[in-house]
Amino acid sequence: MPKLEPYYRDLPYSYATGLFPATACIKACPERCQRLLLSSKLRMTEDVRTLIGACEAAGVRTEQADHVLERISRKENCFAAMVYEKAEGVFDDRLPQIILYNPSDTGNMGTILRTALGMDFRNIAIIRPAVDSDDPRTVRASMGAMFSLNVRHFDTFSRYLDEYDQVPMYPFMLDGSVPLAEACRTVGKEPFALVFGNEATGLPANFVHMGTSVRIPHNDEIDSLNLAVAAGIGIYAFAQAFKAEH
Amino acid sequence: MPKLEPYYRDLPYSYATGLFPATACIKACPERCQRLLLSSKLRMTEDVRTLIGACEAAGVRTEQADHVLERISRKENCFAAMVYEKAEGVFDDRLPQIILYNPSDTGNMGTILRTALGMDFRNIAIIRPAVDSDDPRTVRASMGAMFSLNVRHFDTFSRYLDEYDQVPMYPFMLDGSVPLAEACRTVGKEPFALVFGNEATGLPANFVHMGTSVRIPHNDEIDSLNLAVAAGIGIYAFAQAFKAEH
Repeated sequence: MPKLEPYYRDLPYSYATGLFPATACIKACPERCQRLLLSSKLRMTEDVRTLIGACEAAGVRTEQADHVLERISRKENCFAAMVYEKAEGVFDDRLPQIILYNPSDTGNMGTILRTALGMDFRNIAIIRPAVDSDDPRTVRASMGAMFSLNVRHFDTFSRYLDEYDQVPMYPFMLDGSVPLAEACRTVGKEPFALVFGNEATGLPANFVHMGTSVRIPHNDEIDSLNLAVAAGIGIYAFAQAFKAEH
Repeated sequence: MPKLEPYYRDLPYSYATGLFPATACIKACPERCQRLLLSSKLRMTEDVRTLIGACEAAGVRTEQADHVLERISRKENCFAAMVYEKAEGVFDDRLPQIILYNPSDTGNMGTILRTALGMDFRNIAIIRPAVDSDDPRTVRASMGAMFSLNVRHFDTFSRYLDEYDQVPMYPFMLDGSVPLAEACRTVGKEPFALVFGNEATGLPANFVHMGTSVRIPHNDEIDSLNLAVAAGIGIYAFAQAFKAEH
């Protein structure tokens, strides 16, 4: 087996660090799991037993690897990590989508993925340039949610439109034409896509005329909401509306 | 003037680092600003001129202080910081409250403060033990929102109740008795309090019977939502309901 490397973007594998993300990985994608790394300092709790049991059942090797864990986790303490193979997802066209356009923060991306899974938005389109969805920091912030999602990458937004120009689109913008509550009333039985822009620059101005652009009402004492918060509010509101139609 | 120290909790002053938080500080609380520290590497943009102008107008001294900036910002680049005096807020009893019960993450706290300001929840009660609301990381995550909020600290929840036992309370819990949309329909003209618990442990179980406990519906594929996201969803939904009554 080849020597494990500290993470970088072009590695074909990545690390789900922490007990919860590693367990999410083996449960959702056993076929992508390569090995489970454990620290000699890890205490044998019920959760650890569950994780090791799931690996045994799936034929995934478990090994003590203090040195590798230290190397991949930088400063933070890390007592367990799943080495997993990266893979591109496949969309389930019955479900709504979330489009992340040029996201630049691993924490925000992971947090959005966690919200998306909880609200049944399983199709995630990431438009490049974008922060790495397999960066261990993204995986950790998602609490492993990404392993239950269909995450796809597109080099440009045009590439996305080549496949999905028929999906009703709701771009979230500070100057969106319709307030959130009103936008939710336009949701029908058909799946749709919520679009969120970059942390600092938002979405390009021309998105205001694509589909129904949405604004989340807030006063002008703040510049904008945090991206993961804005996405959370939008996903919650649209999930409620979509559920009411089904 | 005494020598500025690296930040610690018992210091009577703190640092609003970054151009945006420093500007928010001088605009909202000029009387609490002590001095503005600037890096020699700072480029003179329009935003910088605005900040310096606001300091001059308020009689707040500006000084070049590369060494101090390096010391207080740890690894991160920091080109500007406002030294400000800490102060306890005073509640505006016409407005709703947010209660943060034992919050443990500076990033989440700052993000929640930013959402709260944007949605006109200006009264923030922090129940100890809690992460430091004046920690420069909290200030930064809030983008300086805290300077326009009324932030109060209580050593215990009983201390809070000594003053505010008449305020209708909505504790957010995984097993809350009422889903969010339904809870919002109980909002009237009177202000109320939304209560959010600790990142890892949530609220103590007995909160389920205090006021109307609220759950944000999500599937069981995630353990819980991120705290700042859950607070964002709750604040948005209640802000809409409160606005509709006024």
